[in-house]
Amino acid sequence: MPEVKVVQQFMQANDSVAADNRRLLAERGVVAVNLMASPGAGKTSLILRTIEALDGRARIGVIEGDTASQIDADRVATTGVPVVQVNTGGGCHLDAPMVRSALDALPLDDMDLLLIENVGNLVCPAGFRLGESQNVVIASVPEGDDKPYKYPAMFIAADVVVVNKIDLLPYLDFDLPAFRRLVQGVNPRARVFETSCRTDEGLSDWVDWLDGLRARPG
Amino acid sequence: MPEVKVVQQFMQANDSVAADNRRLLAERGVVAVNLMASPGAGKTSLILRTIEALDGRARIGVIEGDTASQIDADRVATTGVPVVQVNTGGGCHLDAPMVRSALDALPLDDMDLLLIENVGNLVCPAGFRLGESQNVVIASVPEGDDKPYKYPAMFIAADVVVVNKIDLLPYLDFDLPAFRRLVQGVNPRARVFETSCRTDEGLSDWVDWLDGLRARPG
Repeated sequence: MPEVKVVQQFMQANDSVAADNRRLLAERGVVAVNLMASPGAGKTSLILRTIEALDGRARIGVIEGDTASQIDADRVATTGVPVVQVNTGGGCHLDAPMVRSALDALPLDDMDLLLIENVGNLVCPAGFRLGESQNVVIASVPEGDDKPYKYPAMFIAADVVVVNKIDLLPYLDFDLPAFRRLVQGVNPRARVFETSCRTDEGLSDWVDWLDGLRARPG
Repeated sequence: MPEVKVVQQFMQANDSVAADNRRLLAERGVVAVNLMASPGAGKTSLILRTIEALDGRARIGVIEGDTASQIDADRVATTGVPVVQVNTGGGCHLDAPMVRSALDALPLDDMDLLLIENVGNLVCPAGFRLGESQNVVIASVPEGDDKPYKYPAMFIAADVVVVNKIDLLPYLDFDLPAFRRLVQGVNPRARVFETSCRTDEGLSDWVDWLDGLRARPG
């Protein structure tokens, strides 16, 4: 079955570059976090609020992954942190070679933390390691509480799940305990944070956790 | 470049099966609509409200595509319409052969309209024709108004764009005229509906359009 062989070689090639990225980041003392989510779950907003909250505590750099456009990178650039846009040209996920190219354009020696915003997609990014030390899935309240059940691969890949847009809970039928049970069911080791980038609720726990990663990189 | 050749052959194979599906559906007088959206945009809810609203006007069948689980199919089955679950086994989109298998399990002679719920993904499904007569993208208000700009391939593929969850407009910064301008920019021929499956606002226009498709299938 030659097709299967090609796919395996392709994934091995990605994992090999991801390992190189991980080594490079460790050498420079940079902790990388891969942020994955559906389109519109609030990845960019969470990055912007995180940069603001970590001001003076950590030196941040950002990679913005999108199928097209650079409006997210433009938004991040207004904060003054170094940011590189990666356009996948329609592709559905970031891969390790794309991140490798972006690393060359970032001032790694002047960074502690790299936030990588993946393409908005709750399926494909789960399968591609980038060199990150932590995988984070952002699940927003309007998407509904059944997502760990319907997109298990993504939640299995997650070290951390952020439930975002909790300010909308009063207007929607999102059962937070049920969602936590579903996450627990597919991935008992995943840590769950609850955040709102509008009201700042829960942001400090998330930011403290990110800040703590620098003490234990890799 | 052998890889490119393989991909092209693969897409040609899909398009060929899609053409077979289209022919089979036309012979049986069934109009097929491919519903694509991000996870949690409200595809299943829109299908459920549509079945209810078209009761007595059209005989509906449903194909439910998911990476895993069958909760959406179970929800649709409670309405009494024939439904087939397609699990992609982690795959990020439906393809024409999957739909072909599902068609064999549906009572086509007793159907007028086939609603196909694709995998929740605003990237990959855009590239795979299934045999549908219309492609519909559902964009929900909480995802933000910039999606046509960030996921252009999906909006270019759309015959119709449904803006769903408009009952949440008072709680979010979604600029409806700006969204319509972005859709117009990437795809001037796309028709836009605005709906809420909570308040039923706008549903009748959408349902009337669907019902009208039967007069001009293919």
